[in-house]
Amino acid sequence: MKKLIAEFIGTLWLVLGGCGSAVLAAGFPELGIGFVGVSIAFGLTVLTMAYAIGHVSGCHLNPAVSIGLLVGGRFDKKDLLPYIIAQVLGGIAGAGILYVIATGKAGFDIGGFAANGYAEHSPGEYSMLSALVTEIVMTFMFLIIILGATHSNASNKFAGVAIGLGLTLIHLISIPVTNTSVNPARSTSQAIFAGGWAIEQLWLFWVAPIVGAILAGIVYKILAPEK
Amino acid sequence: MKKLIAEFIGTLWLVLGGCGSAVLAAGFPELGIGFVGVSIAFGLTVLTMAYAIGHVSGCHLNPAVSIGLLVGGRFDKKDLLPYIIAQVLGGIAGAGILYVIATGKAGFDIGGFAANGYAEHSPGEYSMLSALVTEIVMTFMFLIIILGATHSNASNKFAGVAIGLGLTLIHLISIPVTNTSVNPARSTSQAIFAGGWAIEQLWLFWVAPIVGAILAGIVYKILAPEK
Amino acid sequence: MKKLIAEFIGTLWLVLGGCGSAVLAAGFPELGIGFVGVSIAFGLTVLTMAYAIGHVSGCHLNPAVSIGLLVGGRFDKKDLLPYIIAQVLGGIAGAGILYVIATGKAGFDIGGFAANGYAEHSPGEYSMLSALVTEIVMTFMFLIIILGATHSNASNKFAGVAIGLGLTLIHLISIPVTNTSVNPARSTSQAIFAGGWAIEQLWLFWVAPIVGAILAGIVYKILAPEK
Amino acid sequence: MKKLIAEFIGTLWLVLGGCGSAVLAAGFPELGIGFVGVSIAFGLTVLTMAYAIGHVSGCHLNPAVSIGLLVGGRFDKKDLLPYIIAQVLGGIAGAGILYVIATGKAGFDIGGFAANGYAEHSPGEYSMLSALVTEIVMTFMFLIIILGATHSNASNKFAGVAIGLGLTLIHLISIPVTNTSVNPARSTSQAIFAGGWAIEQLWLFWVAPIVGAILAGIVYKILAPEK
Repeated sequence: MKKLIAEFIGTLWLVLGGCGSAVLAAGFPELGIGFVGVSIAFGLTVLTMAYAIGHVSGCHLNPAVSIGLLVGGRFDKKDLLPYIIAQVLGGIAGAGILYVIATGKAGFDIGGFAANGYAEHSPGEYSMLSALVTEIVMTFMFLIIILGATHSNASNKFAGVAIGLGLTLIHLISIPVTNTSVNPARSTSQAIFAGGWAIEQLWLFWVAPIVGAILAGIVYKILAPEK
Repeated sequence: MKKLIAEFIGTLWLVLGGCGSAVLAAGFPELGIGFVGVSIAFGLTVLTMAYAIGHVSGCHLNPAVSIGLLVGGRFDKKDLLPYIIAQVLGGIAGAGILYVIATGKAGFDIGGFAANGYAEHSPGEYSMLSALVTEIVMTFMFLIIILGATHSNASNKFAGVAIGLGLTLIHLISIPVTNTSVNPARSTSQAIFAGGWAIEQLWLFWVAPIVGAILAGIVYKILAPEK
Repeated sequence: MKKLIAEFIGTLWLVLGGCGSAVLAAGFPELGIGFVGVSIAFGLTVLTMAYAIGHVSGCHLNPAVSIGLLVGGRFDKKDLLPYIIAQVLGGIAGAGILYVIATGKAGFDIGGFAANGYAEHSPGEYSMLSALVTEIVMTFMFLIIILGATHSNASNKFAGVAIGLGLTLIHLISIPVTNTSVNPARSTSQAIFAGGWAIEQLWLFWVAPIVGAILAGIVYKILAPEK
Repeated sequence: MKKLIAEFIGTLWLVLGGCGSAVLAAGFPELGIGFVGVSIAFGLTVLTMAYAIGHVSGCHLNPAVSIGLLVGGRFDKKDLLPYIIAQVLGGIAGAGILYVIATGKAGFDIGGFAANGYAEHSPGEYSMLSALVTEIVMTFMFLIIILGATHSNASNKFAGVAIGLGLTLIHLISIPVTNTSVNPARSTSQAIFAGGWAIEQLWLFWVAPIVGAILAGIVYKILAPEK
């Protein structure tokens, strides 16, 4: 139960911090943080939680991460569904808090919130194929970083730094393509509030990250050093 | 006494570094550091002091942090008031140095200095409710990071990195809402120099951070692993 | 073989992450990440891989690094050619994925992709001499950082942080001069897709980094503490 | 002798990396790195060298740091002059390489290079008093960070991170005031190439950092925990 509370709070923080910085601060006139600031924010939600709750729940905060760790032999099947439920609920709670804050500004228009999208809903209008490739490859590499940096042969106390900053890197590359998901809980949390196209396109942000994570779990088993 | 000198110097640095970067460098024409730079600066004041004076005083630099640690069972009640006094005085000293530097530029107008505010004094004109929610939740999460990352089960040598960059993250999200406080000493230091509305609105930046910190102390006791 | 797969994946990531952030996100209207974001991205590809695969292959990801380590007495001659081949192929694979993603945007023009260049193909139109000096000196310092930070007398668990952020620093300085190579595999991967002048100028981005790396290997032997 | 070569190379890197990023990349049209990028660059020169050569020479790279460590009881008097000479020569060598690179761009005008200045030569036209206060206080805090983070009671393997990012922080605050020195070797290296007013104002960037460093050495003795 402690683990599920930790995953709930952690995913709340990922959504509130990452999507919050995008909605509240990215486009602030003159002084806004832009995609660089949003990328740093997403990464730091994971870095901070890795050290704060990593020793409680492992700090997955992401259904694709839980699935990738399962395939890679690092996570117990019986915990998978409860973890995913806690992550999705935590994400929605984070989106709810963000909604309350954001609507305190006169004239706030929710638009797409910080939802993920492709084609005409991609920030840079990238195609569905680009979005699929991007989300599969980015999640694949995210799991390679996670599985590698937490391996017992690695300097694994640095895993929180490597994984958090890995998520920053993923955002630096791919916000223009899909607004960057690699995390179905994060995508779901925003789609619920944005509605419309964000719900219709949500399937891709479950399928692609999970495919990428499963592939990484398989590849890492080949790559991993003997313990 | 060494502890109080350390808290004084550390909070001086937090205000001089964080508010100083905002007042002197954020809006510099063309090359200014914007909210990203200010966010990094605030975080680095804490990161640098965590390694420099953490072994002397614990490096709280913030009355809400001291209160949250007290509720979480990590800080001695008899030290609370002296710590808070040292923090507030240190913050005011930092603001004083900043005032001397800033007034060395012809035509400097103190305006709101780097004071925290809500409604018409919020950088993005967010309501008092948004400000309350923001400051409570951000301080709550700040204390969850602090209590978690310094736990004996955690890789707690990284606590200074996680806590400092956690403050960076909090600023990346919330500068547009309240100019980000989560720290009554920081808010007080600026309100004294800015006067007027900053003094009138100062109550919120004592109440909300302290409420958030107390809630975190309570929740963390549930979340914390057995030692 | 595991080592070569690791080098392949790592160099793929370096090119996809570093060049990808440049092609996809640097110049995005209003919110683009600029040279700061690209610099951070390149550095984080190395930082993340250092902790993820450093314990598998040493995480060179760069022919010049492999050669510098060989000269510095840290790498076995018989592994050199296989490593370089894996790095170049990984880089090309990363460029290929990037090409697929980038062409999913209507009206995408490959231009120079993220190729390195000098004279009229330098981002800031710096001369061939400036480019040569820059690439030699930057690679020299990159290898001094690598050889020093991984020395057994150093706090070498931090090597991944120092080396990754070292590459960030090198980009902060030198993108305007050559678009920053210090890595023949990275340069080759882009030149193949960009063609024309990028192929013609590619020689410099093999010669200069290798010269810088060899010099560093020699100097570091003088500088290194006795073990 | 190894120590002096290390200090020479390290200070060369500090000047080439920090001042180089300012001269070459800060104001690049549209994509330039601004003061944020320059601040990160200066900090990373120290962070990278701390792990690369810290175990050789202690990685001072700065006459004020050497003097502050001497006053704080951490450095041997007989090494002071050789260290300062190596630092100044290394800084000049770094400035020379930068000059060669920068002049490879048609129409390059050296202007003030990256020299430090006050009054009409302060980037934001801050007075001499502001400059004095800024340089004294910033160097004082830099030495407090250095003396604290390297203390045997601290998590001193993180000292390179704290000290490097401390220099980033100092630049985020004070570039607008003096272009940030806190380092007489860095200031001298630029003044020699810029000439004129930069030479006339150079005295301040020796006096103020040294005063700040000496004060820190004295204060830290009071603050330091018993070993």
